[in-house]
Amino acid sequence: MFESPLFWPAHIKGNTLYVLDETLVPSKIKYIPVRNVKGALAVIRDMKTRAFGQFLVVLNAFLLELGHKGDLLAYVQKVAEQLNDSRPTFPFAEVTGIIVGVAHKAKANGADVRTAVTKTVEGFLAGIRGRRLERVRQIAESMKDGDRILTHCNVSGELAMAASLALAQGKKIKFYATETRPYMQGAKLTIWELTQAKAQVILVADNAAGALMAEGMVNKVIIGSDRSAANGDIANKIGSYQIAVLAKEFNIPLIVLTQPSKGVAEGEDMPIEQRSGMEVIQYERKRLFPAGVVGFYPGFDVVPHQYITKAIAIHAGL
Amino acid sequence: MFESPLFWPAHIKGNTLYVLDETLVPSKIKYIPVRNVKGALAVIRDMKTRAFGQFLVVLNAFLLELGHKGDLLAYVQKVAEQLNDSRPTFPFAEVTGIIVGVAHKAKANGADVRTAVTKTVEGFLAGIRGRRLERVRQIAESMKDGDRILTHCNVSGELAMAASLALAQGKKIKFYATETRPYMQGAKLTIWELTQAKAQVILVADNAAGALMAEGMVNKVIIGSDRSAANGDIANKIGSYQIAVLAKEFNIPLIVLTQPSKGVAEGEDMPIEQRSGMEVIQYERKRLFPAGVVGFYPGFDVVPHQYITKAIAIHAGL
Repeated sequence: MFESPLFWPAHIKGNTLYVLDETLVPSKIKYIPVRNVKGALAVIRDMKTRAFGQFLVVLNAFLLELGHKGDLLAYVQKVAEQLNDSRPTFPFAEVTGIIVGVAHKAKANGADVRTAVTKTVEGFLAGIRGRRLERVRQIAESMKDGDRILTHCNVSGELAMAASLALAQGKKIKFYATETRPYMQGAKLTIWELTQAKAQVILVADNAAGALMAEGMVNKVIIGSDRSAANGDIANKIGSYQIAVLAKEFNIPLIVLTQPSKGVAEGEDMPIEQRSGMEVIQYERKRLFPAGVVGFYPGFDVVPHQYITKAIAIHAGL
Repeated sequence: MFESPLFWPAHIKGNTLYVLDETLVPSKIKYIPVRNVKGALAVIRDMKTRAFGQFLVVLNAFLLELGHKGDLLAYVQKVAEQLNDSRPTFPFAEVTGIIVGVAHKAKANGADVRTAVTKTVEGFLAGIRGRRLERVRQIAESMKDGDRILTHCNVSGELAMAASLALAQGKKIKFYATETRPYMQGAKLTIWELTQAKAQVILVADNAAGALMAEGMVNKVIIGSDRSAANGDIANKIGSYQIAVLAKEFNIPLIVLTQPSKGVAEGEDMPIEQRSGMEVIQYERKRLFPAGVVGFYPGFDVVPHQYITKAIAIHAGL
């Protein structure tokens, strides 16, 4: 099976974390060397990596300066706080809380904090990798021969790998990927990944989803999610909500890849990150529209669980 | 009241038709001189002008070579055929049919074909201008103090002029304009026009419409239409259908500016122009995505009348 670089976009080697610069994919496959927590916070804040990549960065960030002398527990707590504050929509606190807990317990028991944290992070990573591969198999299973699948934004490797698996199983599938303005993750990442996986994929503007569904050109929607609430609501890239409403209107099943958590009760409790309106005004750092134009860019929206036909869940190793 | 160049984007002067190059607006306000029918067909086919502008070009095209010697009736018929074939989604045949009819009748009655055609076209134009100004007043009336109005694509001057009128009436209104990929008519034309009209307007990506509605940030949708069916279905820029579905889901009234016609019974009978998929792949003639990416770009979609709360109609002078 094809493995996308987006499936595992950050890996540690020696004292350096190599983070795939997803903003350059597919033009360049370049890894940013991250040597300390400050660098980890920067790649998160600048959205050099997204969703699952950010989760990998958060976990690995704890390992970067563990050579640190002094109070390692206090250090781990500080790292956790900084990571939690880096992006409001993401539930980093859940996983950083566990690492802090491990450090606490190690210190209380007189064990080595460094070893405890390292083992925990490494164990998490190995477990997550296995569960993600298992989910790829489940996604492939949900793909049927003859499917015309719409997807939005990018689901970090798994969709393309599932497509590759489904193709190997002899299923004929056509994909439609939305551009996903303003960052164009669909047009750049999803199209590239699915093409690499030898799948048939067609790019459409974000405003074509309704027409595709009305014309019967799409019979299934598969999207990822950045966050889940306990009641099944999910937060995902802006545009997911409207695709969900359209899918319901046209009786098309909506499959969401989720990372369930009990951190928040329902979607309304999830803070939505308001990105700068300038991000709609410019593209690849070049201004598209004249000065004076005011943009508004909520980065995410929340899809209420009523719209979700099926969640294919993965637990983030908790 | 502010008058937008898009309100009346083509006017004849002497033997030349000056057509506003809407693809350059707002960077440049440039008029393309059109001296013959071939030139008229070119501005239509290249989408230098759209919707109402195309209607103006179709009407004026008949006047361009009326100096022509020979069988003027046969000439008028040929012009009508060429115009009808230029773009499938547009009901040019209805208006060209009337002109052909006028030429026929003049010839049968021994009257001067040239004079009959010229008077008919000029009469149409004067009548349409009056009715469009009347519609601007009606649109302004539909705008209430405190409204947060979402619009899509561009409605050729009328929305901005109505906004200007509503402002003069002391109403405070906020507009949201969708980008309208791939041509960005919303981001370019609507933002510019509404700004010129001194209205408050905010640009959002096409995929933000659902989130805006869900958050209560929009309480009204106003869009134009390129064509209407007898049952009230309308064809408009791709993305209109999904906005209509969303408006229904969130109980937001959808107002459509229409040009009723009896030419087709219902939306399903309206042929939808499939533009080249390349138009999603490139922007302003520059390739956005790597070679091999396949795009799909239905230029329009059909909004069934059930989704339309109110149509503000204008009859195209028939």
